[in-house]
Amino acid sequence: LPSKLPQSKTSIFTVMSQMAQKHNAVNLSQGYPNFETDEHLKDLVTKAMKNGYNQYAPLAGIPELREQIVKKVETLHAHAYDMKTEVTVTNGATQALFLAITAFVHRGDEVIVLKPAYDSYEPAIELNGGKIVPVQMKGKDFQIDWKEVEEKISSRTRMIIINTPHNPSGRVFSREEMEHLEKLLKGTGIILLSDEVYEHIVFDDHKHLSASSFAGLAERAIVCASFGKTFHNTGWKMGYCVAPEILMKEIQKVQEVNVFCVNHPMQKAFAEYLQTPSHYLDLGKFYQAKRDKFLSLVKDTRFRMEPAEGTYFQLLDYSELTDEKDVDFSQRLITEFGLASIPVSVFSLPGEDHRQLRFCFAKTDETLEKAAEILMKVS
Amino acid sequence: LPSKLPQSKTSIFTVMSQMAQKHNAVNLSQGYPNFETDEHLKDLVTKAMKNGYNQYAPLAGIPELREQIVKKVETLHAHAYDMKTEVTVTNGATQALFLAITAFVHRGDEVIVLKPAYDSYEPAIELNGGKIVPVQMKGKDFQIDWKEVEEKISSRTRMIIINTPHNPSGRVFSREEMEHLEKLLKGTGIILLSDEVYEHIVFDDHKHLSASSFAGLAERAIVCASFGKTFHNTGWKMGYCVAPEILMKEIQKVQEVNVFCVNHPMQKAFAEYLQTPSHYLDLGKFYQAKRDKFLSLVKDTRFRMEPAEGTYFQLLDYSELTDEKDVDFSQRLITEFGLASIPVSVFSLPGEDHRQLRFCFAKTDETLEKAAEILMKVS
Ligand SMILES: CSCCC(=O)C(=O)O
Ligand SMILES: CSCCC(=O)C(=O)O
Repeated sequence: LPSKLPQSKTSIFTVMSQMAQKHNAVNLSQGYPNFETDEHLKDLVTKAMKNGYNQYAPLAGIPELREQIVKKVETLHAHAYDMKTEVTVTNGATQALFLAITAFVHRGDEVIVLKPAYDSYEPAIELNGGKIVPVQMKGKDFQIDWKEVEEKISSRTRMIIINTPHNPSGRVFSREEMEHLEKLLKGTGIILLSDEVYEHIVFDDHKHLSASSFAGLAERAIVCASFGKTFHNTGWKMGYCVAPEILMKEIQKVQEVNVFCVNHPMQKAFAEYLQTPSHYLDLGKFYQAKRDKFLSLVKDTRFRMEPAEGTYFQLLDYSELTDEKDVDFSQRLITEFGLASIPVSVFSLPGEDHRQLRFCFAKTDETLEKAAEILMKVS
Repeated sequence: LPSKLPQSKTSIFTVMSQMAQKHNAVNLSQGYPNFETDEHLKDLVTKAMKNGYNQYAPLAGIPELREQIVKKVETLHAHAYDMKTEVTVTNGATQALFLAITAFVHRGDEVIVLKPAYDSYEPAIELNGGKIVPVQMKGKDFQIDWKEVEEKISSRTRMIIINTPHNPSGRVFSREEMEHLEKLLKGTGIILLSDEVYEHIVFDDHKHLSASSFAGLAERAIVCASFGKTFHNTGWKMGYCVAPEILMKEIQKVQEVNVFCVNHPMQKAFAEYLQTPSHYLDLGKFYQAKRDKFLSLVKDTRFRMEPAEGTYFQLLDYSELTDEKDVDFSQRLITEFGLASIPVSVFSLPGEDHRQLRFCFAKTDETLEKAAEILMKVS
């Protein structure tokens, strides 16, 4: 039986969460909050079920939710999408990414992927017969070598995938970078797939800049967003994408074949919940307190750290402690010390290993304290 | 921009439901119940949210739900799947079908599809570069020409798709047919994709025979099932598939890339709800009463009908009334009479038109009465 994904192994998130469970470890590996989503939002789902929103929703999503999405994007990113033709509600951002790649990547097409990269992009490209053209972000601070990006663009380049705020590095792309990309893509037919699932989780003076905000990017961009990461319910599997109609039309053709539509009562609940912008506008402050707490707890260890600019991930550099590879050290951290993290190299090109581990700080203060205690011991 | 689905148009279900709305018509087109799902099941979803099942579920589904699924299948179809490796919970049966086709159909592979066929199979095959090899079911009673099926099998045949109980015909495949198929596939490497979403909706002396029940089919079958159709909540988008491990492994690779996992609180709710088998075992009786009511209401019209053997669809043959094509007549039925149905020919090979319309009787008695009144007037 020939496999379309011969190299796929169990996801690092599944592996690490299972190991964490087995070793009864504090789990800062897979990215999800271990605290609760808003009770009021749960009540809205209950209300929607009680009120009878239990049959098929329209393919693109229910109008009142698309309206809220469009409003939010226009307010934050100054780009007005047409709710009738330029929004699709999806089963989480992962599905939005999948739809975009499946709709546009033809056999033999090249897709530029900045590494380290979230681990669903590449198998999706592979599944569609596309060719992954990786560009490794450089150094411990993950700088993008735009010259290399430019050199890797060819007549076969169909798509480039970016992710800001960036998982796993915690970097937020600057205006300069977005404008650089805009210039680079000008006049090409290259589609931009912009993974912005951590859009509301940015810290200090950093500001999330959406591809939607740049005319030269918005015209070619599919922007993917997640309700799960924003509203602390990763298991509800709700998200969306926005894109110009010419692109969205193709995405919806795939959506129809893939699932036909998305959970109706939960759409109804989010349509109401999004009417209160503080529900997402306050998120940066909320996670900044978490990040700061985590950083202050581990500042006296021998781990080195650059504060994350965004996302709910903090990298710790352990190169002063040991010369082990990050996959080995992260294993040992679970089995010997009882703390689960993600080795950054699994998202990078083979051979790239900066001796950094990724810790998810979307956890209760108690969990963060336990994790820090362990890190103190290790150090 | 080259399209992967150049021929995709708006789904017939969307078109008909929109037309029904516009003309304020009684809507017996798209297949979904216009009555409520069990309040107790809604309460179980609420409970699961309250109890904190709001983050990522395991990729294959939560163990307690997989356990219930395996138990159910074993009880009903006498085939014991391994809950660890042979079940995947999906975003509805549509997604299960998509996963199976995507995992196994390689560019240039042939897939045999019995027509009329549910409209998601073919674009999924097309998306994967497969070649659709259609076999039209013959006559007004949709008999399968097994000789033709046999002749259409080639060295490139990767998969055959069957659907029993069959949408739109309402036919339930007989033991003889299943055994015929078993013999036909013996010794080949052909994968069987068995769409059994109406498994619990069978009438009179008919019995649903799952591909799981035939050793020679089970070894090569991916069986797809739907909670939405069984529990009256098509908008929750929950379903599953079962298959031998060697097949399921590949399906799960695609599932990981497609959505990673499925709605967690709803999985939790179904895991509890399935513990009461009457919740699905009583469904045939429930829908038989609906079918019988609908048939008795229209028996004095000039529509001809063979009682549906299963599904919640009833075909009506209008050839005594008019010579119009079914697409034209179904349009006129909406615009002039205010009743929406589905023309069967949209699921068939071009040119095949038996002057039959499909009516969904998963409706309240009141709605069925209104529909019948209109059919009396037309007749
Ligand atoms: C889908 S599980 C992965 C969650 C996540 O986004 C991450 O940990 O990077
Ligand atoms: C996904 S909408 C179609 C519902 C259905 O199964 C049908 O009407 O055949």
